[in-house]
Amino acid sequence: MTDDTPNPALLPAGFADALPPEAEREAAFVEAIMASFALHGYERVKPPLLEFEDSLLAGSGAAIAEQTFRLMDPVSQRMMGLRADTTPQVARIAATRLAAVPRPLRLSYAGQVLRVRGTQLSAARQLPQVGVELIGAESAAADAEVAVVAVEALAAVGIENPSLDITLPTMAPSLLDDAEVSPDLRRRLARALDRKDAAAVAEAAAEGGAALAGLTPLLHAAGPADGALAALAKASLPPAARAIADNAAAVIAAILARAPGLRITLDPVEFRGFRYHTGVAFTLYGPGASGEMGRGGRYLAQGGEPATGISLYPDAMLRAAPSAPGPARLFLPLGTDVATARRLRAEGFVTVAALSAQDDAERLRCSHTLVGGTPVALKRKKV
Amino acid sequence: MTDDTPNPALLPAGFADALPPEAEREAAFVEAIMASFALHGYERVKPPLLEFEDSLLAGSGAAIAEQTFRLMDPVSQRMMGLRADTTPQVARIAATRLAAVPRPLRLSYAGQVLRVRGTQLSAARQLPQVGVELIGAESAAADAEVAVVAVEALAAVGIENPSLDITLPTMAPSLLDDAEVSPDLRRRLARALDRKDAAAVAEAAAEGGAALAGLTPLLHAAGPADGALAALAKASLPPAARAIADNAAAVIAAILARAPGLRITLDPVEFRGFRYHTGVAFTLYGPGASGEMGRGGRYLAQGGEPATGISLYPDAMLRAAPSAPGPARLFLPLGTDVATARRLRAEGFVTVAALSAQDDAERLRCSHTLVGGTPVALKRKKV
Repeated sequence: MTDDTPNPALLPAGFADALPPEAEREAAFVEAIMASFALHGYERVKPPLLEFEDSLLAGSGAAIAEQTFRLMDPVSQRMMGLRADTTPQVARIAATRLAAVPRPLRLSYAGQVLRVRGTQLSAARQLPQVGVELIGAESAAADAEVAVVAVEALAAVGIENPSLDITLPTMAPSLLDDAEVSPDLRRRLARALDRKDAAAVAEAAAEGGAALAGLTPLLHAAGPADGALAALAKASLPPAARAIADNAAAVIAAILARAPGLRITLDPVEFRGFRYHTGVAFTLYGPGASGEMGRGGRYLAQGGEPATGISLYPDAMLRAAPSAPGPARLFLPLGTDVATARRLRAEGFVTVAALSAQDDAERLRCSHTLVGGTPVALKRKKV
Repeated sequence: MTDDTPNPALLPAGFADALPPEAEREAAFVEAIMASFALHGYERVKPPLLEFEDSLLAGSGAAIAEQTFRLMDPVSQRMMGLRADTTPQVARIAATRLAAVPRPLRLSYAGQVLRVRGTQLSAARQLPQVGVELIGAESAAADAEVAVVAVEALAAVGIENPSLDITLPTMAPSLLDDAEVSPDLRRRLARALDRKDAAAVAEAAAEGGAALAGLTPLLHAAGPADGALAALAKASLPPAARAIADNAAAVIAAILARAPGLRITLDPVEFRGFRYHTGVAFTLYGPGASGEMGRGGRYLAQGGEPATGISLYPDAMLRAAPSAPGPARLFLPLGTDVATARRLRAEGFVTVAALSAQDDAERLRCSHTLVGGTPVALKRKKV
């Protein structure tokens, strides 16, 4: 629809009205994604938009405390938060109300999240979020299932040829722990790794001795999974780091067994943005330059339960996916009988009934009109 | 799923987690209702959950100001409200961003609304709300379309034989205006009408003279539409009240032309709960004692545009509708090949893959397991 009178002052920055047909498209996307999750046994939960801030910001929720709108509950006189992320709520449900349900527990969720401020990448302060959590399974197969379920959800809305970026957020900290480096050196190394500054990494690593010898090769190993795994296999690593590398190889093998041909990249020493992850972390990219479609990985859920999950971003997916034409809109002139109208809807037409003699098919943006009981396509006027 | 460890202190009163399978059922209901609206040409809009309180509480939004959570926007330093009703937001969109789209404009919406306090009928402070608004059409046909679209949405989720209660919230005020009664008598009459206290109405009406002679017959007219319309036709009414009665007859005739056999009741002098309505008002009841499924009617949208709409309550509909069995859940033993799994999902099975040798079909609540590549139904254990 046209938007002839935009008034940006009408809504707070970062909040927007979705209009036809975008609002319908977003809803259809979310339900197609959820249906794809459901086919793999993921069952929907729906936590509330508001809950006490103590529980909302517990565990992994602490990471987004600053981004959470807070308000006083006049009933309980306690502070509540408007969720900025659904994942901690799903973890709470798994650990409390669904504590007695046998594991592994497969849960999915869809809903809006609200953030106090937009980010550099997106001004939006209300975003749709959908995702899955697989709770109580520790295997590489569990990580692989979650990654592949996300890839299939993308395919369900027409996004083909995504690429999966795997990072090992515990690898660099593990190497640094093993090397028992000073806090100062640790900070310098973290900053150098974060910037992918190979010269600075090499220089700082040299101060850390033999235990850090693996860092530079791992920095250079980043790239397509097969090459990165070969470099990891050859690298000289202390036992804890070796276990992390072997697990990465097992997860990637399990993913490729389920999704042959999926493009996977591996960056062993990247750790940015994955603060609470305890194993592999995923970032899922759309084709071309369409950007990040989702993010997730392995973590410890409430009570120390092993868990793995991924969140998808329907707004990014909407921009990346091909748009499908809407259904045919059929104008029903005054006096069209009820049974005919019902039959045409059953055949797949959207019907737009005339309510007065002034209504006409073109004004009401119809693609078809009814002539003698039969739908006839209207010629599109050239604009 | 079982809920073995309820902890009511975990969530604020009136907020709840929806668990499997209820969360899925609610989502499926909402989408089925929206799909039913869409078949009649209603196009989805999605206003944000938060907006400036000035715009959120303007017009018909004022009625719900007390029920609206407010919070400060740190970006603009202005007060925002969390919507307690989606209808005023849809009216805002129609009057601003969609002002140039030809009328009649058919819009639909679905989303969560939040309320500061629960009501006597329901403790819930977060509720799903779906509805339609038909903006820019004044005819009885427009009112009838909205009522029938709501009835068809109920049918789309299996709720048959609803009944539609029509009230005329302008009738009693119109009679009182015409009689030019004193403020005191007006208050007494309003209270008596509200209580359906026929004796008090008759006594007070007698003080008002001939212009109020119609009140008592109208009070007794309430009931099935045919009888009520006959009583209205016979009643002696001043011209303004006569026009209201004639319009009610036209709307009811238009509804029955579209939905023959629909149970309609008419209560001409009831006005409770419909403060901003300017024509017929609707309350839609489920079969038996299942209660109110939705509410709406004719009103003036922003800028004085004639409009009619209805909101449905998916939570009430969920309680009233028959529940359908979920899809078959098929356990896939370790080593099931990827192509087989995909084929079985395409056939309609939900697949639950073993991730370790400990996983088994019964623990994972599966209805079927795979034996030699073929799904086999499991016997239900008696509990």
